Amino acid sequence: MSPTKATSNTTVPTQLLQTNAHSYAYRRFGSGSGLPLLFLQHFTGTLDNWDPAVTDPLASGREVILFDNAGVGRSTGEVPRTVAGMAQHAGAFLEALGIKTCDVLGYSLGGMVALQMVQDRPSIFRRMILVGTGPRGGEDIMHLEKPSLAKRIQDPTNRGYDVLKKIFFTSSHASQAAGEAFIRRLSRRKEDLDPAAGPNVANAQIAAFREWEGFKGERFAELKAIRHPTFVVNGAGDEMIPVSNSYRLSENLANAVLLTYPDAGHGSLFQYPESFTRHAAAFLASNSESAAF
Amino acid sequence: MSPTKATSNTTVPTQLLQTNAHSYAYRRFGSGSGLPLLFLQHFTGTLDNWDPAVTDPLASGREVILFDNAGVGRSTGEVPRTVAGMAQHAGAFLEALGIKTCDVLGYSLGGMVALQMVQDRPSIFRRMILVGTGPRGGEDIMHLEKPSLAKRIQDPTNRGYDVLKKIFFTSSHASQAAGEAFIRRLSRRKEDLDPAAGPNVANAQIAAFREWEGFKGERFAELKAIRHPTFVVNGAGDEMIPVSNSYRLSENLANAVLLTYPDAGHGSLFQYPESFTRHAAAFLASNSESAAF
Repeated sequence: MSPTKATSNTTVPTQLLQTNAHSYAYRRFGSGSGLPLLFLQHFTGTLDNWDPAVTDPLASGREVILFDNAGVGRSTGEVPRTVAGMAQHAGAFLEALGIKTCDVLGYSLGGMVALQMVQDRPSIFRRMILVGTGPRGGEDIMHLEKPSLAKRIQDPTNRGYDVLKKIFFTSSHASQAAGEAFIRRLSRRKEDLDPAAGPNVANAQIAAFREWEGFKGERFAELKAIRHPTFVVNGAGDEMIPVSNSYRLSENLANAVLLTYPDAGHGSLFQYPESFTRHAAAFLASNSESAAF
Repeated sequence: MSPTKATSNTTVPTQLLQTNAHSYAYRRFGSGSGLPLLFLQHFTGTLDNWDPAVTDPLASGREVILFDNAGVGRSTGEVPRTVAGMAQHAGAFLEALGIKTCDVLGYSLGGMVALQMVQDRPSIFRRMILVGTGPRGGEDIMHLEKPSLAKRIQDPTNRGYDVLKKIFFTSSHASQAAGEAFIRRLSRRKEDLDPAAGPNVANAQIAAFREWEGFKGERFAELKAIRHPTFVVNGAGDEMIPVSNSYRLSENLANAVLLTYPDAGHGSLFQYPESFTRHAAAFLASNSESAAF
């Protein structure tokens, strides 16, 4: 199967990009007149954690590029212990691909990486989609030791993808059913899988969250300088990175539309993939200076 | 001109509906397979304050019904000093029209009236759009005496519709330009105009805001019982009814999608009418039990 033929994260082959210092694992598929859309992944997530119900509809109209940061999946190197370190790797990856400007979908940790990248080099992105994420200096970011989360994460009956159903979705029947469907979609990919992230990945990424919670000077001041059209999305009941962080993003970014979903947690984009991809595609299709779409 | 032919609030004739107790002024136009959409108006607003760029696109696909509450415009009676009193008038109006269930777009004060109506009689609405409004017990609701607002409202150079440009829009060039366009659209209607609201209307409606800010028992508890699909919209920079009130609505209503617009104040729907009506029409077109669209 040729990389350019597959149009789903269920089947697209993983590629390796060699730079001077690293080998980066990625998947690239889809086509259309839009700029490529870079996907930046969540805590401990690999290429296999991207829901085809999110990636595939967006691959109609543009190329999508899924990326394992350093030390994750089949990418080499140490997992950075700061968001800034992850942003450097993602920038080096795009440079090695010859991409000067693209769109980005940053989810959770990936949204923080996107924010750092655009602060470091504004021209790297045209439009940004930030889902379930928060600004530097945000509140209650990924405290997995909280009793409400720890209980679900440490439950031995939740193994593999099952734990995602418990922490990305709410306890309602409808949300858990959506979580089941999400896991079934992830499980469709049977070959060419990334190795699951181990404790070394988790520990370094948690260190990055703790560093990201800190701030110097005026809180959120750096957001006001970012004028890129931005689409901020979250579940109203996100317990991992509470929706208040999305409020602070949309209030302080110069040019951001906020959308929140009901009865949804951290995985709102996977709970409502049809709605999310329809809105995301409309946002990306716009060439307006305004984020409003 | 026949009432059924006109498809714009610029030209549709005003009608009067006689009940036992009152005569209610309204305008009704548009057509399609959707349920009628009732528009409930803002503080001191009359039928003439509905932007045709908002009403007219929504009149394609359904009838829209614009309504003067008691004592406003050409509707008879005393202006109620509570939201509950206004909700009773709106309910009596719908009953006299023979409408048992409809959709609603409640803006500002009108959103509070919609919330009270659906609490009193859940079957009255199928889907609700709540723009620039807030829940009972909300914060900083329509305090026109705040220095930031009072300065603009009392400026003698702001007359008639001009004051709306200053208080519904932000001070940015883009938002003020959108405010100019909004006023030009309102000014297109030259005949069959409502009388502007006087101090008696303003005083009674301000009393209703003050009563609405109070609450008994658990704050926002009444919202959790409302399961209607709801679309909550606000400008991120609303100074009249701050966006935090929309956050509380979307967090506490059982089934609400929230959308906020950047660089926008209280009049976000008039600043981005194309975007707003596109989203509102998609929301209204859905028959899903979920608010997600």
